[in-house]
Amino acid sequence: MKRKVAIGIDIGGTSTKYGAVDEFGQIHFQGRLSTAKFGDFETYVKVLTRNIQNELETGNQYMEVIGVGIGAPHGVRQRGTIEHASNLPWKGVLPLVSEMKACMGVDVTLTNDANAAAIGELIFGGAKDMKDFVMVTLGTGLGSAIFSNGKLVEGHDGFAGELGHVTFEHENGRYCRCGRRGCLETYVSATGIKRTIFKLLADHFDDSELRTISFDNLSTHMITESAKAGDVVALEAFRYTGQILGSKLAETIHHTNPEAIFLLGGLSQAGMFIFEPTKEHMERNVHPVFNQKVQLLASELEGASASILGAAALVWHSDKELLISV
Amino acid sequence: MKRKVAIGIDIGGTSTKYGAVDEFGQIHFQGRLSTAKFGDFETYVKVLTRNIQNELETGNQYMEVIGVGIGAPHGVRQRGTIEHASNLPWKGVLPLVSEMKACMGVDVTLTNDANAAAIGELIFGGAKDMKDFVMVTLGTGLGSAIFSNGKLVEGHDGFAGELGHVTFEHENGRYCRCGRRGCLETYVSATGIKRTIFKLLADHFDDSELRTISFDNLSTHMITESAKAGDVVALEAFRYTGQILGSKLAETIHHTNPEAIFLLGGLSQAGMFIFEPTKEHMERNVHPVFNQKVQLLASELEGASASILGAAALVWHSDKELLISV
Repeated sequence: MKRKVAIGIDIGGTSTKYGAVDEFGQIHFQGRLSTAKFGDFETYVKVLTRNIQNELETGNQYMEVIGVGIGAPHGVRQRGTIEHASNLPWKGVLPLVSEMKACMGVDVTLTNDANAAAIGELIFGGAKDMKDFVMVTLGTGLGSAIFSNGKLVEGHDGFAGELGHVTFEHENGRYCRCGRRGCLETYVSATGIKRTIFKLLADHFDDSELRTISFDNLSTHMITESAKAGDVVALEAFRYTGQILGSKLAETIHHTNPEAIFLLGGLSQAGMFIFEPTKEHMERNVHPVFNQKVQLLASELEGASASILGAAALVWHSDKELLISV
Repeated sequence: MKRKVAIGIDIGGTSTKYGAVDEFGQIHFQGRLSTAKFGDFETYVKVLTRNIQNELETGNQYMEVIGVGIGAPHGVRQRGTIEHASNLPWKGVLPLVSEMKACMGVDVTLTNDANAAAIGELIFGGAKDMKDFVMVTLGTGLGSAIFSNGKLVEGHDGFAGELGHVTFEHENGRYCRCGRRGCLETYVSATGIKRTIFKLLADHFDDSELRTISFDNLSTHMITESAKAGDVVALEAFRYTGQILGSKLAETIHHTNPEAIFLLGGLSQAGMFIFEPTKEHMERNVHPVFNQKVQLLASELEGASASILGAAALVWHSDKELLISV
């Protein structure tokens, strides 16, 4: 008997990851290709599909694909489209689901990357018994997803959970790729903390090993290592980032009163450097009824396969009515 | 045949309103009593119940009560309790549902006042065909309720929708009855705009007819009348209030992407004076995917009976699974 698998695909601005995941969260193969190098969307879909089918055919014939789940920035489940994603090479509205379906011959489900991560956390991670939780992904940008009453909050147009673009700084805020200024993700994300480091280096005299590194070469991992070594600039950058994130998560708590908020992605791997100031300022900014009630947790999906698990979970658990049909 | 009615009760800090509402939203009697004058909670419940039963017995014997719905600040449906409501005379956790049930002999449903208003809007008002909307009540404080996927968002502890206490001013904000500082409702509410008027009168030289009125005597209605007469202080107070409300509603939109946001209560009756700046700053602070997508509407329940309709709607539509059972 063939083993049933779901194909999980995570489309990011830089690269696309894909893999075959069984119902227990076991990954049977995985691969990646560049997203950025495909100027043409249709070519991208064809190459991606061919790569997956090659994996399925060569040496992996014991698998039966029951569906494809895709997480992508600005992926809208209701319409099966990616819409105006500023971090992807293709503009406008992209009919991803219909094109993938034509190529793969199975059901295809698309949602935005943070929603996929949240569903992954619910199915394979730390949110297994939770009905009300929030997922915050801290990558190039800041993505988020909200579960309420055991259902994903999608909103009237499918764009709920856009916390990366709540305004943090109303006057002269940092420029954002969305065309506005002061959005939360320009401060709180892998890119945001780099911008903070460069702002601190510009404003202060403090010695820092980070003065030797260019903007393009600087990574969250490096900032974390510097913080561990006691670098004052790195430490201050984490404190500042956590302060902002914590105060904004407090607003999220007032909206949906979750049981837990999960952090996922590079920045969350900085551990206590980001969790401590975030927790402190989250607690400081909530009404007393919420004090010490909401857990701030690291995603249990951390690691290279997290996003693939999340995307595949879309397929495995579509039958559980996590998603509301329209 | 007797006409079936639901008793709707709205418990406010100053007064309690009650009435009998049939399934079409027709009110068959209504009354009110002071909330503030009852130092003792049990006496309050007894007097309230007796008043209602007197109405039912004297001249209204054609009615059959099928249930009681109650909206109250910090009312928690799951536990049937009012918990730590800073605007009510009784402290701690109050077992309202069990006491009312014992007195009335029918099912009693409690939720917070903003949730009741939202359910009222859904059943009898402007949200009839909506699955995703937000209700904001602008009274003594600022209450709010969120519907998502056709269900009320209650949250893990039943406190979702506490937008009155998101922090607007992080440094040296206005004192709030919750014990914190800078909460949204200290700026945006009937009380909040009064505080703004007095701040403006303190900071500026401008002539204003409002200089002749004491804080205790000033009402939203007076501020609205002054604004209509071109009073610069009143106009500036509305502009400032709307700017804050609009920027915060933008954050709400990023969370749950509603189809509409309804404003209810005294401050919302100021019409364009509050709606125009609110709409302007709401649009300014949203990501482009939300631009001109979310309607900002006046509640269709405006008027003295709005809160009674909302509370009664809890009973009439408990069968429609608006509320998730725990």
